[in-house]
Amino acid sequence: MQIVGSICAVSSSLNVGKASPMVHIGACIGAIMGQGGSKKFRLTWKWLQVFKNDRDRRDLVTCGSAAGIAAAFRAPVGGVLFALEEMASWWRSALLWRAFFTTAIAAIVLRALIDACLRGECGLFGKGGLIMYDVTSANISYHLRDVPPVILLAVIGGILGSIYNHLLHKILQIYNLVNEKGIAYKVILACCISISTSCLLFGLPWIASCRPCPSNTPEPCPTIGRSGNYKKFQCPPDHYNDLASLFFNTNDDAIKNLFSKDTDTEFHHSSMLIFFATCFLLSTFSYGIVVPAGLFVPVIVTGAAYGRLVGMYVGFATNLNHGLFAVLGSAALLGGSMRMTVSLCVIILELTDNLLLLPLIMLVLLISKTVGDAFDENIYDLIMNIKGFPYLEAYAEPYMRQLTVGDVVTGPLQIFHGIEKVGNIVHVLKTTKHNGFPVVDELPLSSYPVLFGLILRAHLITLLKKKSFWRMPAPLGADASLRFSADDFTKKGLGHGDQIGDIKLSKEELEMFVDLHPFTNTSPYTVVETMSLAKALSLFREVGLRHLLVIPSVSGGIPVVGILTRHDFMPKHILNLHPQLLQSRWRRLRFKLPRLR
Amino acid sequence: MQIVGSICAVSSSLNVGKASPMVHIGACIGAIMGQGGSKKFRLTWKWLQVFKNDRDRRDLVTCGSAAGIAAAFRAPVGGVLFALEEMASWWRSALLWRAFFTTAIAAIVLRALIDACLRGECGLFGKGGLIMYDVTSANISYHLRDVPPVILLAVIGGILGSIYNHLLHKILQIYNLVNEKGIAYKVILACCISISTSCLLFGLPWIASCRPCPSNTPEPCPTIGRSGNYKKFQCPPDHYNDLASLFFNTNDDAIKNLFSKDTDTEFHHSSMLIFFATCFLLSTFSYGIVVPAGLFVPVIVTGAAYGRLVGMYVGFATNLNHGLFAVLGSAALLGGSMRMTVSLCVIILELTDNLLLLPLIMLVLLISKTVGDAFDENIYDLIMNIKGFPYLEAYAEPYMRQLTVGDVVTGPLQIFHGIEKVGNIVHVLKTTKHNGFPVVDELPLSSYPVLFGLILRAHLITLLKKKSFWRMPAPLGADASLRFSADDFTKKGLGHGDQIGDIKLSKEELEMFVDLHPFTNTSPYTVVETMSLAKALSLFREVGLRHLLVIPSVSGGIPVVGILTRHDFMPKHILNLHPQLLQSRWRRLRFKLPRLR
Repeated sequence: MQIVGSICAVSSSLNVGKASPMVHIGACIGAIMGQGGSKKFRLTWKWLQVFKNDRDRRDLVTCGSAAGIAAAFRAPVGGVLFALEEMASWWRSALLWRAFFTTAIAAIVLRALIDACLRGECGLFGKGGLIMYDVTSANISYHLRDVPPVILLAVIGGILGSIYNHLLHKILQIYNLVNEKGIAYKVILACCISISTSCLLFGLPWIASCRPCPSNTPEPCPTIGRSGNYKKFQCPPDHYNDLASLFFNTNDDAIKNLFSKDTDTEFHHSSMLIFFATCFLLSTFSYGIVVPAGLFVPVIVTGAAYGRLVGMYVGFATNLNHGLFAVLGSAALLGGSMRMTVSLCVIILELTDNLLLLPLIMLVLLISKTVGDAFDENIYDLIMNIKGFPYLEAYAEPYMRQLTVGDVVTGPLQIFHGIEKVGNIVHVLKTTKHNGFPVVDELPLSSYPVLFGLILRAHLITLLKKKSFWRMPAPLGADASLRFSADDFTKKGLGHGDQIGDIKLSKEELEMFVDLHPFTNTSPYTVVETMSLAKALSLFREVGLRHLLVIPSVSGGIPVVGILTRHDFMPKHILNLHPQLLQSRWRRLRFKLPRLR
Repeated sequence: MQIVGSICAVSSSLNVGKASPMVHIGACIGAIMGQGGSKKFRLTWKWLQVFKNDRDRRDLVTCGSAAGIAAAFRAPVGGVLFALEEMASWWRSALLWRAFFTTAIAAIVLRALIDACLRGECGLFGKGGLIMYDVTSANISYHLRDVPPVILLAVIGGILGSIYNHLLHKILQIYNLVNEKGIAYKVILACCISISTSCLLFGLPWIASCRPCPSNTPEPCPTIGRSGNYKKFQCPPDHYNDLASLFFNTNDDAIKNLFSKDTDTEFHHSSMLIFFATCFLLSTFSYGIVVPAGLFVPVIVTGAAYGRLVGMYVGFATNLNHGLFAVLGSAALLGGSMRMTVSLCVIILELTDNLLLLPLIMLVLLISKTVGDAFDENIYDLIMNIKGFPYLEAYAEPYMRQLTVGDVVTGPLQIFHGIEKVGNIVHVLKTTKHNGFPVVDELPLSSYPVLFGLILRAHLITLLKKKSFWRMPAPLGADASLRFSADDFTKKGLGHGDQIGDIKLSKEELEMFVDLHPFTNTSPYTVVETMSLAKALSLFREVGLRHLLVIPSVSGGIPVVGILTRHDFMPKHILNLHPQLLQSRWRRLRFKLPRLR
């Protein structure tokens, strides 16, 4: 699905990228492997069973994303870093090694395929080799006096990047309203965008005037084919239309044209300005319609146009040619919009193979990220926000330091006893949506209530399905391992888990008892209820938890007062509980963009 | 100190690297900044005071190390990744940004200095530009049939790497015995190594025969100066000694010679074998004597020699020239000995500026790390081990899953009451060496014992110094903030903290009381004593803790049963407590090298 959709979208010259769909495909493959293959397509392997747990599945998804970036940009190291900097909400050194392994294999396979395609039998794929936008030049030299224009470029890039984020955020909100109305509206919206994109692309080149071909160029000058720097587009012979050269190419070729050196005179101011403005708008409008779309490539194109534009206006003061300005412009816009550092740096390095430019690229990223961060959040957080995923931020909001864990624990807590009545379990599972329940041992088993552990909903359902019940409350003993295999408790695929409603139990069975002890996680992570919320969040995030038990600070009484999940840490939830925090001064320091309404 | 020592050591042609001293210098600068500047040298800044805490100091040290690598290898991105992969025992995304900031500044300054030195006024520094060992060649092409020799190279490289680690480990153990005997022995040892190194370097080239100069070479053929590919060394005119060309150069130039292309016939089999063996032995023997020494550059030299050697024997089957084999050999030995992946990959990329070779380098690192890991630990862990630093491993040993936290808590626990007698505090501080103490509220303040928090030794000492005592046990109230400024509790520099012995208290004062409540950390991280040790370790490491309180699972009684520090997680400590685990089958799967005695 994703593959087909992405190919169609990119080839219909919508201004979308191919990177994110690639990442998505990679992540999907990872998730499928994490489910032990897909039963539907009969792709199952025995050895994949070992991945059937939460942690390994998360790792596989991260590795898949890394491989996606590696394949999309032919940037294996950049892929690893991207996955770690942006995707992974927590970090283990084993994960680094796994991601590296994945992308290394991806790089080697890619290199082998390029090798096999050298004879040009695979269309455009083999062209360009491992480096997509090669800008190596023998002697790039720049000196101190070249630095001020670059700093200017970076500052404006940061501002543009945050405007880009803001605009995209607004447009996605509008699109969300449209998309909610049904599939027909979605398709109509996509068609509208697609048609207006086409109109713009074919209409705008008419504005630009024809320019005579340069006399000494290695490429054929007026071309009509799909790639090439000089497009004829209704011009007299030996003339070319510079705007058409940019619009009528694939995104990749447009980037190549913009990055190429010794083409300072090839494009006109006005054409470049039109191209930049069109790209900027189209890329914001094209993202968020129903086709699988990426952000990376459009931002690179827009940034390259922006960089060339700056190069044209201030370039006279420097040694840098406009191609290098385009590279730096892409870096500035990427930094200003995505706010990554090391991974962007490596991806740009791997895309352009220009190590000598590295100090300048680092400088640009540094400045544009700082400038952008002063205005709004990074683009991925904004998108996550709109889609409503409960994505935990890396940092605790300042007001969280003022709250304790006890302040956010809500709702009636459902507790199971070590040996529990089947009817009780069924009732609780049917009436709540919690995924984890604390298990407490009480009087017959111990003289005072003791927290025994945490049991998962999925495991409870498995227990109910197997129906190993007892008429009397009695411990199960050692034969638990005989009745159940580890395979019964492996993590099910998304949507493949059994539902409580599917299990039919007789009235007699509901009156029976089941021993939960052998199936309980006996060492759940716990915090005392007086723990600061910010510290609990850091524990939750760093260790990568799903449930965090809250135990009381005073002893006696029940040994657990609540259970925290990701949702309890979301700012929305907390501000709902404590609305007075909204007016307080505990807000993050950030300039506000004027509202665009 | 470090700077002078490192310059002397490198220039005395001992086979040591300059990277680690650079890293050390960087880390020291970071630590000094973390202490708010050095009072001794009157380098104090007001704004550095904000860094006076544990977390920021750790970050600064990490950033300093990153800058060290960035400066030593002119590899800024590699520096960031090295610091994160090897140095940082825990990871935050803010740390990534800080490290990136540091190395970006380092890269820009470095580039500016190179620019200023372009006229060659700074000796060898300006030479080579930003890329140290440039091996760019226009068209490196390799195909599937070149892969088997590379795999062979990687496998042997992994084995060599682990032999290297093993040898270094043994030699360091022997050196430790010598060094314990006193400073005189240390100096004698260093002199012995230095003299024998010189003898070897001057003696061995006599073995190699003179070779005629190639006719068409851009460099002057027999040279006598300090750099250059062809060294005269007692040869007739128009002849050169290939072994001397390697030995009589700086390490950097030797690497450049080995990496250079179109020099397949320049060196002889036997010379290369001798060079490799000498480097391998010298680099193990030179590390660990009293001079500041690095491992990176020697390993690169040795690896390059090894790679060329392999290239000479199996290179006839491939398109790759011997220079590329040398690069891959360095990668293999680095991977086999240091076991890093992404950072090595980026460092090699930044050293050689050869993006096309990236898939092969990734393949080599992948294989050599895997092979090396099968035999022993990585070199940094081994060195840490010998120096006795309590460095926590990233992974829990398998037997830790069998233990609970309660199994490793030892010793009498020292608890303070919320309002404590001064004499008690002094006594406890004098008789124990703990750095953190739990604070428990008891009867007069609450009707049952409640865990209030954790107080640090340093804060207790500050309290005692300020002498805000009370004759009667009474709470301090709100005026605590008036009597103490935040500055009193900032983290002191290493060795600058006050000792308990320095504080003189009268007999009367010892009988008075002090209120600990305002100075206690009220939300320490806690685990229940039934928690699995492996999970507690993961909490300890991921959140980056120093103290972890253990609370009882049954309520009533005292509310804290122990306190865990890094030492309690060390395998040595655990195996001391539970010697039966030594014989058990819970050991990591690993081949054993035969003992070299």
